Amino acid sequence: MKRNIYLKMQPLTEAQNIFWSNFSHYLTGEKKINSQDADGRVTSRPVTAVLSSPSFHASAMDGLAVNAEDTFGATDDSPVTLHLDNDQAFAVNTGHPLPDGKDAVIMIENILLQDGGNTGTIRAPIYPWQNVRKVGEDIVATELLFPTHHRLGPPDIGALLTAGCSQVWVRKKPQVVIIPTGTELVNLDNTTQEVPHGKTVESNSSVLGALARRAGAITQISPIIEDQYETIKERLLESVRSDADMVVINAGSSAGTADYTLQVIRELGEVLVHGVTIMPGKPTILGEVEGKPVVGNPGYPVSALISFEQFIMPLLSRMQGMELPEPQKTRAVLAKNLPSRGGMEEFRRMITGKLGSRFVCVPLKKGAGAITTITRANSILRVPSSSEGESQGSTVEIELLRPLEQIERTLLCTGSHDLTLDLLHDLLKKSYPSYPLASTHVGSLGGIMAIRNNMTHLAGSHLLDPETGEYNIGYIQRYLEEMEVTLINLVHRQQGFMVMPGNPKNINGVADLYNQNITFINRQTGSGTRVLLDYELEKAGLEADNIEGYDNEEYTHMSVAVAVLSGKADAGMGILAAARALKLDFIPVTEERYDLIIPKLFLELPAIEKVLEVINTSSFQKAVDGMGGYSTRQTGRVIL
Amino acid sequence: MKRNIYLKMQPLTEAQNIFWSNFSHYLTGEKKINSQDADGRVTSRPVTAVLSSPSFHASAMDGLAVNAEDTFGATDDSPVTLHLDNDQAFAVNTGHPLPDGKDAVIMIENILLQDGGNTGTIRAPIYPWQNVRKVGEDIVATELLFPTHHRLGPPDIGALLTAGCSQVWVRKKPQVVIIPTGTELVNLDNTTQEVPHGKTVESNSSVLGALARRAGAITQISPIIEDQYETIKERLLESVRSDADMVVINAGSSAGTADYTLQVIRELGEVLVHGVTIMPGKPTILGEVEGKPVVGNPGYPVSALISFEQFIMPLLSRMQGMELPEPQKTRAVLAKNLPSRGGMEEFRRMITGKLGSRFVCVPLKKGAGAITTITRANSILRVPSSSEGESQGSTVEIELLRPLEQIERTLLCTGSHDLTLDLLHDLLKKSYPSYPLASTHVGSLGGIMAIRNNMTHLAGSHLLDPETGEYNIGYIQRYLEEMEVTLINLVHRQQGFMVMPGNPKNINGVADLYNQNITFINRQTGSGTRVLLDYELEKAGLEADNIEGYDNEEYTHMSVAVAVLSGKADAGMGILAAARALKLDFIPVTEERYDLIIPKLFLELPAIEKVLEVINTSSFQKAVDGMGGYSTRQTGRVIL
Repeated sequence: MKRNIYLKMQPLTEAQNIFWSNFSHYLTGEKKINSQDADGRVTSRPVTAVLSSPSFHASAMDGLAVNAEDTFGATDDSPVTLHLDNDQAFAVNTGHPLPDGKDAVIMIENILLQDGGNTGTIRAPIYPWQNVRKVGEDIVATELLFPTHHRLGPPDIGALLTAGCSQVWVRKKPQVVIIPTGTELVNLDNTTQEVPHGKTVESNSSVLGALARRAGAITQISPIIEDQYETIKERLLESVRSDADMVVINAGSSAGTADYTLQVIRELGEVLVHGVTIMPGKPTILGEVEGKPVVGNPGYPVSALISFEQFIMPLLSRMQGMELPEPQKTRAVLAKNLPSRGGMEEFRRMITGKLGSRFVCVPLKKGAGAITTITRANSILRVPSSSEGESQGSTVEIELLRPLEQIERTLLCTGSHDLTLDLLHDLLKKSYPSYPLASTHVGSLGGIMAIRNNMTHLAGSHLLDPETGEYNIGYIQRYLEEMEVTLINLVHRQQGFMVMPGNPKNINGVADLYNQNITFINRQTGSGTRVLLDYELEKAGLEADNIEGYDNEEYTHMSVAVAVLSGKADAGMGILAAARALKLDFIPVTEERYDLIIPKLFLELPAIEKVLEVINTSSFQKAVDGMGGYSTRQTGRVIL
Repeated sequence: MKRNIYLKMQPLTEAQNIFWSNFSHYLTGEKKINSQDADGRVTSRPVTAVLSSPSFHASAMDGLAVNAEDTFGATDDSPVTLHLDNDQAFAVNTGHPLPDGKDAVIMIENILLQDGGNTGTIRAPIYPWQNVRKVGEDIVATELLFPTHHRLGPPDIGALLTAGCSQVWVRKKPQVVIIPTGTELVNLDNTTQEVPHGKTVESNSSVLGALARRAGAITQISPIIEDQYETIKERLLESVRSDADMVVINAGSSAGTADYTLQVIRELGEVLVHGVTIMPGKPTILGEVEGKPVVGNPGYPVSALISFEQFIMPLLSRMQGMELPEPQKTRAVLAKNLPSRGGMEEFRRMITGKLGSRFVCVPLKKGAGAITTITRANSILRVPSSSEGESQGSTVEIELLRPLEQIERTLLCTGSHDLTLDLLHDLLKKSYPSYPLASTHVGSLGGIMAIRNNMTHLAGSHLLDPETGEYNIGYIQRYLEEMEVTLINLVHRQQGFMVMPGNPKNINGVADLYNQNITFINRQTGSGTRVLLDYELEKAGLEADNIEGYDNEEYTHMSVAVAVLSGKADAGMGILAAARALKLDFIPVTEERYDLIIPKLFLELPAIEKVLEVINTSSFQKAVDGMGGYSTRQTGRVIL
């Protein structure tokens, strides 16, 4: 084990400059390919036209080719008759060559054909070269069609072919070798049933490979190798000496006992940067071996991805003579306080939606280990290293991971979580792919506060008013008194205790939580489940304080279930679906009502209309009933 | 020949609705593919996690795994020593499973190792579960990873693998058959030297194929078939009865003598729309044969492309359960008057750049036959059918064909054309791919007016002042008196007469233009070449009026050369390079100076700096000298 000492951590742009400038003249080779196959490729030489287009004076219309002089003087009062039977006029279609001696085309709509098509009468003259596409009007042979380092698109293929360029010189695609390293890694394949304890599925190489291919590269993914100095060294050397233009080692870039990437690059070549002041992505190594870029990419999935996007993808583009487009940006209001560690630039993954005229962004969890923080995000907030964070309500600039109009249509759903929201999400996206539903789970009261602060379109809530025994209405009256909101029932659901299979501690009701050998896992203050538990305890005349583990809090049904499954606790309160998902036993305690709160001003949004439409379908309700622990007897009913 | 009668032309959105609603439930089938290969594919079912991640409590740091209780009370004054030699602490790396009984990890940076690594001393406590990634923290088995109709991206592949989903159900790619029809069409291949007279290179199928592939489709391009009713019918029927999801016939959608597409679709199925009020793209046929969409796509290259983008690409996306992103838009000031034909929605191709804080857009030619109007454009202005055009200086909304920041970096070069500008463009793009130079040719005086109206970054000019014999300066003083501009020499160049090879009419100077059998072709008023000719005529004491063809105007050197080559005229004035390009003979008349006019406020733009850098390179100057007819003796010199 050795200390985690970085040479000198570099800020992002500095690290990029050091790395890229070292390979600023590195271009991939060139090859000649068929123009038909050139979409997305980058020219490596200027392209000039071989042929002119049109290559002859061509009719631009269906009609009669004539000598314009023959039409002069034609009016309504004195029409002119042209003869097709003596070569004075020729019938031509669009694209036909103009017959010799003719210099204009009369549109067919303007001709009265007579005498079995032998004559045509017109009532207006035309001028010379009217309705004629002249030689070279589009392209003149020898002219520059495309400069060097032009990225060809579909219309460009048309110009190449039209100009007689059947082939075109383009930059070769850069070749990238990605080497996954890690003694703990295993491959997932179609036969994998279970991952051995302590092992992790290797997924980064597939993610980085797909990114590299999006940047125009050809990828070669090496088999997983162990954290073993000589093995890494051999594989790296072999890769550098192949046709590869770049080698990426993932991971081993940090400074654990088995992190050899740094030493190997140092032995074989030069380490240019070790450590970047970004989070995720800090333990990035940027180096060079035998003139080729070699990157030690960090191992956490989000770190691996951000480091790859910041350093490698732009270089892959430049090697082909092009620049990556910058991400689209917009300004948004921050839905929550976002503390940040000074000294590091943080890439926070966000869910953004549009509420009225303003964008609102909700931060997801920070952890670099959670791939779902990037798959669920539609935007990124870069908190600069000079900042110690941003406060709720402040306006920040975010980078978009999805097209703007998709973000504009994203429905923010902030509040209590229920598994039927996932079902709703699925059915909504199935019927209306362009209306994403993005849920964040902050508990029922958190959802009501988000509604109050105009930070969400809708909120799931199941808050029991202990005084009335009624759900949600009392809280709406208390916290949303100045707003007009609608309350619509989503489901009724069972709440109960999740316990290990077979219920080894024999828990059958709230009173059993006081047994000496029982540790409980609770939900956070403000969650509907916490309120429900407290109500049940009070009804039974019991004191919460005396329950072992009452102060240990989790934020979702699923994390409570996980705490039970992993032995951290013996019981936790939650819904049947969560217990079933992890094959836990479920001891029902009570049934509760779970509603959606929606500000009335959003009711006419197309996305909300579609949500309500889906909730009222029998396919949604049947699927909910099939999950167990739910009742749809009031689903879709407007309560308030 | 028959009249061009449309059933009833539909406006664009109406036509789209009629067409799409007819296939609104048409989805491609589904298949299971390996998750590694799923980038860009669309889920056909909801995807739920098979495994949790982490699947065990994992260390989130390199350090010592301990029981947090053992660290309580540690401070600077009373450090706590932990024993690695009796299982009180275990060395762990990031990702390792937490040993049984341990519930937290101390970062290696916070430990002083002693006794040969047998003990570690700490000066601060940690709390339970600190630096531990708990089971299911990222993904809980059974949870919804992605809903139906989610388009998978690179990070999603990571989530799939991490969640144990080695395979995933996705929509099949739609299959599109594209049938090029036209008796005048020929294929271009590597052996093509010359296109037979009257024939046209078939290019649309390659363009449309590339577009369809960008929309996720698999394409099958049929061989060219003749404009022959039975042949078209057979090929269409065969295609519809194959695995194809859509058939596109290009073209034959208009109403010429040989346009059979309409009748064939009508015989075999149903014509839903014939004719759309868009330009280009009017003669589009949207139909259905045996339950599949069949499109008669117009034949002009720009029409084919716009019709394909408006009708077919969105449908291909929907067949896969996704929506195409909308084009990015911005507002821009129109650099020229843009008359439009009422009743038709016009898709005008534009070149847009940013001048100071405003975007300026310059319209390209209208012609649907000119593929270069779309390859040169970086944006589209849609002029609504209710409009009769827009005036210079008005603000319009444009759709971007390139990323916004590329448009922001586009240098507008409006004025006289010279072939060395193409060379400059090439060398600039070769060294700085992200700085495009976009030239539009409006003559020298047009360029000066564009500078005056703040519609261009730079202008090429070669305007002779007949009184002083000096170039450009007098015009700058007259027209740009209130602006600060710089004048930089680009080249000196030969001007002379372009004539047919061998100079059959024996033209050796301006006086010969008065010969009886000679027809001249002139440049437009305001062009430097026109001024130069008039100056030469005046110097020789000759009257312009007596030259046959003096009033026939062309707008570029190249179109003058084409007029000569095609026999329309016997001589025209222009530069040597233009004559050489078309293998014409060149009779030198005089040498002139060609300069660049640049407002001083643009001199510090990175793009202008790079232009000036390239002009001053020896590689630029050597290449110019190699073109013939040029001198670089003052190239790059600041004249004013």
